[in-house]
Amino acid sequence: MENFTYHNPTKIEFGTGKEKLIGQHLLEHGIKKVLLCYGSERIKQEGLFDLVSQSLTDKGIALVELGGIVSNPVISKVREGITLARAHQVDAILSVGGGSVLDSVKAIAAGVCYDGDVWDLFVGKTGIKAALPLFAILTLAATGSEMNPGAVATNDETKEKLLISAPSLLPRVSIVNPALMQGVSRDYLVYSASDVIAHLIESYFTAAVQPKLQSRLIESLICTIIETTETLLTNPADYDARSQFAWAATLALNGLTFSGAAGFSYPNHAIEHSLSALFNVPHGAGLSVVMPAWMKWYLDRNKPQFERFATYVFGLEAPEAGIAALEDWFNKIGTPTRLSQLGVAETDLPAVVDNVQINVHAFGIANIYTPEVVTDILKRAV
Amino acid sequence: MENFTYHNPTKIEFGTGKEKLIGQHLLEHGIKKVLLCYGSERIKQEGLFDLVSQSLTDKGIALVELGGIVSNPVISKVREGITLARAHQVDAILSVGGGSVLDSVKAIAAGVCYDGDVWDLFVGKTGIKAALPLFAILTLAATGSEMNPGAVATNDETKEKLLISAPSLLPRVSIVNPALMQGVSRDYLVYSASDVIAHLIESYFTAAVQPKLQSRLIESLICTIIETTETLLTNPADYDARSQFAWAATLALNGLTFSGAAGFSYPNHAIEHSLSALFNVPHGAGLSVVMPAWMKWYLDRNKPQFERFATYVFGLEAPEAGIAALEDWFNKIGTPTRLSQLGVAETDLPAVVDNVQINVHAFGIANIYTPEVVTDILKRAV
Repeated sequence: MENFTYHNPTKIEFGTGKEKLIGQHLLEHGIKKVLLCYGSERIKQEGLFDLVSQSLTDKGIALVELGGIVSNPVISKVREGITLARAHQVDAILSVGGGSVLDSVKAIAAGVCYDGDVWDLFVGKTGIKAALPLFAILTLAATGSEMNPGAVATNDETKEKLLISAPSLLPRVSIVNPALMQGVSRDYLVYSASDVIAHLIESYFTAAVQPKLQSRLIESLICTIIETTETLLTNPADYDARSQFAWAATLALNGLTFSGAAGFSYPNHAIEHSLSALFNVPHGAGLSVVMPAWMKWYLDRNKPQFERFATYVFGLEAPEAGIAALEDWFNKIGTPTRLSQLGVAETDLPAVVDNVQINVHAFGIANIYTPEVVTDILKRAV
Repeated sequence: MENFTYHNPTKIEFGTGKEKLIGQHLLEHGIKKVLLCYGSERIKQEGLFDLVSQSLTDKGIALVELGGIVSNPVISKVREGITLARAHQVDAILSVGGGSVLDSVKAIAAGVCYDGDVWDLFVGKTGIKAALPLFAILTLAATGSEMNPGAVATNDETKEKLLISAPSLLPRVSIVNPALMQGVSRDYLVYSASDVIAHLIESYFTAAVQPKLQSRLIESLICTIIETTETLLTNPADYDARSQFAWAATLALNGLTFSGAAGFSYPNHAIEHSLSALFNVPHGAGLSVVMPAWMKWYLDRNKPQFERFATYVFGLEAPEAGIAALEDWFNKIGTPTRLSQLGVAETDLPAVVDNVQINVHAFGIANIYTPEVVTDILKRAV
């Protein structure tokens, strides 16, 4: 196992009714005025907004609203949030929504504490030295952002989708109530399953040092996602399946599965981010297209691990069979596996390949993922 | 899944050479004078003491020493530590050793901040309201104390072995360098394996709510412990096995495996603590005697989970076969499975059963573990 530092001080409040604790948690952190960020107006129609604002009011905490954050969140909206946060001198940011809202909140929290334009932090012009405290109430389980220090946003002018990460971007408290996720659409459920599996397989297959302990934990989480997704497709109200899905999604990217692994990278994310940036496809939908294609290309580079995957996830023997089984499963649950299903034509590939070069440079894997290689991978998904 | 709060802010520094960072970490926490606690003089002979004290001196941190902490740590030694910490007005406690030293350090840290006798905290006369910051350099992986808020100590007068737990007893930083564990004796390696497995099976079998996700994680950790113990018995210098063993031991009791489970208890620990308290047997050796006996008694109360255990840990079908396989494995690696191997005779049982009543009351399971039941369980280990 490789040397590592593990430090994840985010407090998770998991379970039904936990959103009512938000006022108390903000109070304990000395927060007096908060910028509450959300996506669609659904949280108002469904009563969550009122419940949260009541919890804040009860503790004497003022709130400023920023709604309308879209999935594949854009930096222009982040800038709007930074301006608002400064104008109202809030002392914390609260996300009520899924990964897109939370990622935007992280960018706002960092941007408020930075003098220049927030996009500088994404392109690595400077490091993140400080951020406002941030808190989350999660309404969609997928990105793991609720217990990690990362955030992704798209520059709507340049069409770059890039990542920031800093310890100060770990939420102080994240509230994960699976019951709030029952309204997630069938489509977004299966995209979420794909996203979580993508988080789990990147280090699993690419790590130069991949201890068996970590492989076992990853297989446990993948099996849980597969099983609970199937249950939820049949019965969306199954709270136990919803909760195991949600907790597996959190554990999939909170450091647990890759601490001790080394020399791994995120090629599937690097490629998918370009599909989202250029065609605004749901991240998980893009990933279920990229993953089987990438796996077929990568197979010979780590055959023993693909054999493990086939055996421990699908009970199959041949390494190729595991890849086929995953692709079949994506087809079965109804998340795309072909570029055409995303509305991306073969003639679009050069533009995608070009955009991917931005990401593979940012991820430090441009030496492997040359334009030729990325073309080779994507052609397998035509 | 049951509602839960997960919050584990301990920073883990894992890997070779990490002990050299101790001075820096204490400095970052503003520590100026530390009580350094250890067990035998081995850490001096092997150079670890010099290395640690150099790291502290380099950062201008003064140290006061307390050596001679024994396994199955006693409260009289804790009192000595409290007196010393107060006399020298240290502002933190540092454990250099295994779980016994660390548990003593936790008790000292809490005791310094309490006006009465420290044993009051163990018998629940009052809660733990504050503790000095505490830090650890681990030299034996077993108890998981490096990333949890619990500590166990024995009252050497009353022969009670009891537990304290409080968030303030989570180490600020724990340094886990598997290379420091290469000198662990063959006996203590197998006792440690037994201890870790005991931590994993208590909630696994006894929980009223035991989600499959958590069962899978637990099985992953048990399989890792079994596999790496066998490797280490053949080749104690195998760093990779040593590191997977150590990290599995940490994860086994840091909250990961039982968050979301509910209605579980620690009957094996409740029974074993009396063997340690009365006969000073190594905790892990006591546990490998108690576990198979308890499992045989408990089998009919949760047969499906014993079937899971047989299947996913040992690749067997019958629930009884899993228990037999674990007992066989304990015999194979050389940790005791019979009371006689611990020097406990059948005529000693009434005294043990009597002492166990203290623990089952403390654990809140006295209604199930009556003297008759505990006798029944222990007779299976004669």
